[in-house]
Amino acid sequence: MTIGNNGIRFALAQIDTCVGDLDGNGEKVLEFTRKSVANKATVVVFPEMTLTGYPIEDLAFRATFRNAAWDKANALASQLKDEGFADAYVVVGTVGTDNERGLPRNRMVILHDGIVWAGYDKHFLPNYGVFDEFRIFTSGQKSVVLEIDGYRIGVAICEDIWQDGGPVAELATKNIDVLLTINGSPYEAGKGHTRHELGARRAKEVHAPVVYLNQVGGQDDLVFDGGSFIIDEDGALLERSPQFVEHLDFWDLTHDASMSSASALSSELATDEEMYRACVLGLRDYMLKNHFAGVCIGLSGGIDSALVATMASDACGGDNVWGISMPSTYSSQGSRDDARLLASNLGAHYQTESIERVFDCYQRQLHLEGIAAENIQARIRGVIVMAYSNSKGLLALAPGNKSELACGYSTIYGDAVGGFAPIKDVLKTKVWDLARWRNRYAESHDDLPPIPISSIEKAPSAELRPGQRDSDSLPEYALLDKVLEAYIELAHGRADLLADGFDEHTVDTVMRLVDRAEWKRRQYPLGPKVTALAFGRDRRLPVTNAFRE
Amino acid sequence: MTIGNNGIRFALAQIDTCVGDLDGNGEKVLEFTRKSVANKATVVVFPEMTLTGYPIEDLAFRATFRNAAWDKANALASQLKDEGFADAYVVVGTVGTDNERGLPRNRMVILHDGIVWAGYDKHFLPNYGVFDEFRIFTSGQKSVVLEIDGYRIGVAICEDIWQDGGPVAELATKNIDVLLTINGSPYEAGKGHTRHELGARRAKEVHAPVVYLNQVGGQDDLVFDGGSFIIDEDGALLERSPQFVEHLDFWDLTHDASMSSASALSSELATDEEMYRACVLGLRDYMLKNHFAGVCIGLSGGIDSALVATMASDACGGDNVWGISMPSTYSSQGSRDDARLLASNLGAHYQTESIERVFDCYQRQLHLEGIAAENIQARIRGVIVMAYSNSKGLLALAPGNKSELACGYSTIYGDAVGGFAPIKDVLKTKVWDLARWRNRYAESHDDLPPIPISSIEKAPSAELRPGQRDSDSLPEYALLDKVLEAYIELAHGRADLLADGFDEHTVDTVMRLVDRAEWKRRQYPLGPKVTALAFGRDRRLPVTNAFRE
Repeated sequence: MTIGNNGIRFALAQIDTCVGDLDGNGEKVLEFTRKSVANKATVVVFPEMTLTGYPIEDLAFRATFRNAAWDKANALASQLKDEGFADAYVVVGTVGTDNERGLPRNRMVILHDGIVWAGYDKHFLPNYGVFDEFRIFTSGQKSVVLEIDGYRIGVAICEDIWQDGGPVAELATKNIDVLLTINGSPYEAGKGHTRHELGARRAKEVHAPVVYLNQVGGQDDLVFDGGSFIIDEDGALLERSPQFVEHLDFWDLTHDASMSSASALSSELATDEEMYRACVLGLRDYMLKNHFAGVCIGLSGGIDSALVATMASDACGGDNVWGISMPSTYSSQGSRDDARLLASNLGAHYQTESIERVFDCYQRQLHLEGIAAENIQARIRGVIVMAYSNSKGLLALAPGNKSELACGYSTIYGDAVGGFAPIKDVLKTKVWDLARWRNRYAESHDDLPPIPISSIEKAPSAELRPGQRDSDSLPEYALLDKVLEAYIELAHGRADLLADGFDEHTVDTVMRLVDRAEWKRRQYPLGPKVTALAFGRDRRLPVTNAFRE
Repeated sequence: MTIGNNGIRFALAQIDTCVGDLDGNGEKVLEFTRKSVANKATVVVFPEMTLTGYPIEDLAFRATFRNAAWDKANALASQLKDEGFADAYVVVGTVGTDNERGLPRNRMVILHDGIVWAGYDKHFLPNYGVFDEFRIFTSGQKSVVLEIDGYRIGVAICEDIWQDGGPVAELATKNIDVLLTINGSPYEAGKGHTRHELGARRAKEVHAPVVYLNQVGGQDDLVFDGGSFIIDEDGALLERSPQFVEHLDFWDLTHDASMSSASALSSELATDEEMYRACVLGLRDYMLKNHFAGVCIGLSGGIDSALVATMASDACGGDNVWGISMPSTYSSQGSRDDARLLASNLGAHYQTESIERVFDCYQRQLHLEGIAAENIQARIRGVIVMAYSNSKGLLALAPGNKSELACGYSTIYGDAVGGFAPIKDVLKTKVWDLARWRNRYAESHDDLPPIPISSIEKAPSAELRPGQRDSDSLPEYALLDKVLEAYIELAHGRADLLADGFDEHTVDTVMRLVDRAEWKRRQYPLGPKVTALAFGRDRRLPVTNAFRE
């Protein structure tokens, strides 16, 4: 790929940053800039809040942190010049400080010729769903056009292009050649298309292509999927980076639009693969960024723990996964066999810790019955999982899925124990889909399908009393998941749900379960919260909520 | 108390509402209005978001809830008329809907003559500390003056008087006779004086007395302390309601200010009593609003569990408190004696559940050492506490204090188990102060001081290994608490802390402990969070935070 005299080359550096890690993030900026300049790029674009990581939440309020970020931007500019990259324009996100009030800002700076050459402050500060920015930052008021090698480059940060008006509306009147946006846009199922439509709309508005550079990687309970792209006024995709991996791509802007050179477009992922990869990346990055080399998880023989263990082996390798089978007198032989087979398929460590003797020991002292006797079995397992975690320095994984967590069908301090819950945002019917997809993927790559077929096909059971089935307590999952989507995601009330065509008994059952679970979860927080949309969008409800529709 | 022909009587209904409980809150409005009218009041004032409770968080987004609140306001207006109170002006807070965009608003309505007579929407929406209002509500744009019996009454809601400009600035030009504010202002140590100063400043600005009506009661992890007051331009308190109790007070406004009649002022509480009562009210209301009649708590003989059990017996009576002594081989006889004596002093149930046999049973299987062996003892206790909770329907209480939680000096799924943590916002040195205050209070009321003196005086120990002392792992609490206040509350960085005069070793130890605890707590959420100011102000930090100063 070469570029003519009239063109300017953009490098799209879709990187994975870590919150607070100024040194590590800065190192990555250097590394990707070196590669970019080696490929003759003039403008190197990094994601929103590159240096600080994103989202930084209340860390923004620490003046020491803001000062360190400022020092890092200047040090980087110097070093880039020292390395001979003075001519490059390196666009990075960081935290800034509002000169008037001394408050934090979400800022883009351009490193050029050894200095911090220009800056732009985000105007629209999202404050819904997972976003808290209005709480943290003050708003920039000015639009900015960079003049580089005869090209007029308008800039914006993430939410600035999601809202009408503001800086983008101003840029529409400023005869720009390209609109450059840096983003930290979390993954949601189907969001790729929404972003493309939005990009095309803004391209039309400003009469210029839009460069959409997104962050990639897991950060706590969010996953950023990357999928950066460039789109023109006609909605034609000029470039698309892959999802879920760091990537460096190039694009040449020329005054003759027909000359703009495009790389091959990365192909789109189907929903199941996309969601599976999002879960694996979320877990992998959580482990990396928190310095865990391995995980431990209770293997019941059921589908949830099987899928989570498989994701874990994809995230860190089977030999870093400790599967613990903890059978009781209610565990079927089939469940034990499935757990063992799964571990063998994954190449994972496999340990059996029967809970029977400890359970007897508690019972001789406490004589528990009913729910209390069921819960204590789950809690003995929780204690054993944490004993492995403490002894071996492993991250304990909680296997709960979204349907089960939404309905409170789990034991606090029992199966809910864990530092990370990879499928907490995945409904049970989707858990089966992802398991089947993973097995098919293995088959199509001539690998052994990892998940035992009987784990996928058998009726779900907690195995805490004889003959127990999930369907004793919950509607069938195919129905339950539809009601949950309407009640949680769409916030449909009782009348809406009936109008949706669900029968009254099911509606009342599900609403009662979810309301009660929400209440219990906030009394005894579990870690995994049930979110209103896939991947991290939280309903913030008060614990005490006496409202009943 | 009578009122002349020229006057108008205000009733200050300082009530305790419950989030979501439209019926219960409405019933309370009726009850207090009846008493107010019987006392010749014309204007009856209730706190912010009376009908819905406060804070309602994302519940505001449910259209079904907003509609139900609107129906409730209309039904109340009708019923007030039916009961013969058509002439009264009943000022209540509720959730409204923005006509243009269909979004929620924080609204004041006046019920009068059978209808919802007037309304005002909150202008300034706080979005810091514990507040999320800008996220939830849209902003009202108009100031409102009510004309009642020849008096001009300006109105405002809570934050509207904390910010300069906006509706209060407009009211200053409108020749009002009184500024009526309804509030949901959470308790913080020393906040009473801040509110009085603010009230006086606004009274000066609008040239009229300010009525400050505050909510009272615990709501989840917040405590609203009441302490409603009326203050004039000169900063003179014309009325002050007591803290921590529901209260109905009256005040007469006349055109001749010197004639305004004041009730006796409630006396101010000293800091220790104020904080103790805040904790008890928080726990009591959490139990009431979540329908718990009793609590269970592990009694170690230490000061934290002793103080929490004492607060619990003050909240719900000693016969509703189950104290569980769970000694191990490392528990001293003194600790067991102190636990038994405390329970006896409180009239609480007392059970002994030795953890030795269960511990042996786990160890024969797991052979744990070091921290893992320490943690499993705490986790066996957590399982036993939850077994009591499940079997008897009791609320499990976590005894952790703020110093310990800030430094991570507790075991997740162990002593951190519990649905409510009454002293999570109380530093350890303050725990001792509150315990001593409670004993002195008993003495001064000729009661038995409940807390054994040796629980107060002995060196703190987790008793998880022979001879263990807190001071093996932590700086002395007198010093630790000072550093914690500076680091957490004041957000002082390392350089600031050294400038504060703390020695380098202590500063580095405390920063390392707090940063690591923050990180661990967000990996394995405990329920009780460490807050930056007393009673609920949360630091929102990302889990993964690689920033080290």
